[in-house]
Amino acid sequence: MAKVAVMGCGTVGAGVIRVFDMNSGAIARRVGEKVEVKRALDLREFPGTPIEKILTHDFQDILNDPEISVVVETMGGLKPAFQFTKQLLEAGKCVCTSNKELVAEHGVELLETARAHGVSYLFEASCGGGIPIIRTLNESLTAEEISEVTGILNGTTNYILTTMADEGKDFETALKEAQEMGYAELHPEADVEGWDACRKIAILSSLAYGGHLSYKDVDTEGITKIDAADILYAAALECRIRLLATSRREGNGIWALVAPMMIGHENPLTTVDGVMNAVMVKGNAVGTTMYYGSGAGSLPTASAVCGDVIECVKNNGRPVSSDYSSGPISLLPVDEVERPFFVRYRGTETEAIRKYGEISHITVLKKYPEEFGFLTPVMAEKTFKAIAAEDDKVIKWIRRGKKEEAE
Amino acid sequence: MAKVAVMGCGTVGAGVIRVFDMNSGAIARRVGEKVEVKRALDLREFPGTPIEKILTHDFQDILNDPEISVVVETMGGLKPAFQFTKQLLEAGKCVCTSNKELVAEHGVELLETARAHGVSYLFEASCGGGIPIIRTLNESLTAEEISEVTGILNGTTNYILTTMADEGKDFETALKEAQEMGYAELHPEADVEGWDACRKIAILSSLAYGGHLSYKDVDTEGITKIDAADILYAAALECRIRLLATSRREGNGIWALVAPMMIGHENPLTTVDGVMNAVMVKGNAVGTTMYYGSGAGSLPTASAVCGDVIECVKNNGRPVSSDYSSGPISLLPVDEVERPFFVRYRGTETEAIRKYGEISHITVLKKYPEEFGFLTPVMAEKTFKAIAAEDDKVIKWIRRGKKEEAE
Repeated sequence: MAKVAVMGCGTVGAGVIRVFDMNSGAIARRVGEKVEVKRALDLREFPGTPIEKILTHDFQDILNDPEISVVVETMGGLKPAFQFTKQLLEAGKCVCTSNKELVAEHGVELLETARAHGVSYLFEASCGGGIPIIRTLNESLTAEEISEVTGILNGTTNYILTTMADEGKDFETALKEAQEMGYAELHPEADVEGWDACRKIAILSSLAYGGHLSYKDVDTEGITKIDAADILYAAALECRIRLLATSRREGNGIWALVAPMMIGHENPLTTVDGVMNAVMVKGNAVGTTMYYGSGAGSLPTASAVCGDVIECVKNNGRPVSSDYSSGPISLLPVDEVERPFFVRYRGTETEAIRKYGEISHITVLKKYPEEFGFLTPVMAEKTFKAIAAEDDKVIKWIRRGKKEEAE
Repeated sequence: MAKVAVMGCGTVGAGVIRVFDMNSGAIARRVGEKVEVKRALDLREFPGTPIEKILTHDFQDILNDPEISVVVETMGGLKPAFQFTKQLLEAGKCVCTSNKELVAEHGVELLETARAHGVSYLFEASCGGGIPIIRTLNESLTAEEISEVTGILNGTTNYILTTMADEGKDFETALKEAQEMGYAELHPEADVEGWDACRKIAILSSLAYGGHLSYKDVDTEGITKIDAADILYAAALECRIRLLATSRREGNGIWALVAPMMIGHENPLTTVDGVMNAVMVKGNAVGTTMYYGSGAGSLPTASAVCGDVIECVKNNGRPVSSDYSSGPISLLPVDEVERPFFVRYRGTETEAIRKYGEISHITVLKKYPEEFGFLTPVMAEKTFKAIAAEDDKVIKWIRRGKKEEAE
């Protein structure tokens, strides 16, 4: 019998306790022994729930229990999660987490601590909820030179963008609805400003390219400025606007970006709707692969955490290695990246052509007769930005997928 | 330095040698040491190629080489692959294979041999080419009670069906074209009769449900009877015809089937075109997940084999466990499964309604004025078949996705 503890009994933590209970038979069959949640740490009380019987308010009860070999950290945030995790690893316990802030901020240090103490620090649930993308990068695509990771990594913003497109709502209304449905938090900045997706692409890129990409270095733009008109133009261009988190090898360097982009049928991510997430990984041998599933939610995320716990138990004290080294990845400037840009314009076609060259997909919407939309030719972002900054006819612009995906 | 050998230098085997060469840097970084292909076994000669220098015609050169710890089996077929694999495992060497015939036929025995000798028998490349679906079932979705595995697992048939739909070709023409493009073999029976997909769903189901599903027990129907008219009807119903390989938990039992089915937008597999493969896995905690990539081809399949080799090397003699037990899975009869059926009919609507009840999606194609198509209500397959067998107005029928996916 393997004994584990759960720290933080919120949405994901409570889900972990539930999954170990409801799937105990299947788990015991796969592990070869029963896995029991012996302790749960939380400041709150949980009267009348299964948590009550195993609850403690004292971290020491977990740290000092020699029977507990694996600890789940689903507290979120940096404090006290970082300190707790570090102490547990130093005490020779494996830690499995869904805490992307902590992994993005201190992952390198915690992985080193784990290595030094012969234990594992696993974080499958930190990216893509129930999608097994971390293990895929870490243990499956190991023969690849990975050239790109692009994902829809935030369910809240994808739900908002899907609702805007399907029901013609504006951003504020869609956000309010998402909050009422429980898909967006009361303070939604981390989601709608792209910070959450930014941390996740930093983690995935670190694994994909074998170094440490700091999330602070990733150019990040949220979806708060996307309005109903943008969505209508996208539809007219047979596109969808999606918050993409992407990183890509270009020559000897890597660039990374989180931003709303217009993508079309050529991109399999276009069909990912609502709170679902998906990650596309390209390698030089395997080509394009994609992984799709629930990006959030109690049980899907808990399933990923439990999978990590099971790996620790099956490995029986032998650490799981990770291609996440401390060597920093320095990014190429996104300004050099070439792609077409979608522009909403209040000038004339002639002016637009004079400034941007061979524009295409010229679109006039009945609802907005005083402007039109178009796609620029493929050009470097800095070139485009330099022209657009001086052009007072530009109402707004949005990046159009990637160079080779453009028509 | 880890030393490996490759047995069988055809499309996949040669790809394995190439991937270890072209991605040696990334692989060494992830493994912590260089991985070298020391020996290649084949009956043929390979003058002027990289294989020439490491070639042997004698299996004993691999079996008796104490330096070689992992052997790739990409020979295909049962003889002599089975005997060679067994001897290698007994000699304490890990074996990694793309040979689905061998895994489906003797997987249980070979896994037991591997266990008994403390080594691994891995077969990521046997299903879905470069898609890391085996490891996902084996190591990621381990906290799940899996309820369904459904895939497009054969690239040849998917290419043929896609070509028929996109270019209005009939089966024979599309097959011939696929043969000319190298996507179909000269003797295409294993693909077009569904046998290849059948072996793959048997392997995936065995891992998903934790027993041994014999491929011989899976009802299997190929695509040879699909004609241009069927494809036109599917399009009129906003559907695609896909060769689905599926297995599903129903109550305490499991049923499995390989057959062409009509699926619509509600099913993410609808968008999988050409030679691409995809597998959908549903679990009671994670919900629906999907995995997409190249289902065949030299480098994608080789990438999966190399990933297995790397796992063996990283595990350094410690066997990788697999939830593929010898306990047989006995299947429920597919006849009990309920779904709608698409029927091409040369009778009247009144007759059809009298026999099948509330039919829907009644469709008349200009090109085939003497018949019409419709969907039956949801009914058990045996009920439908009993009526259809006595009904000489039925030209043909095709299964329509699954019960809960129907409108």
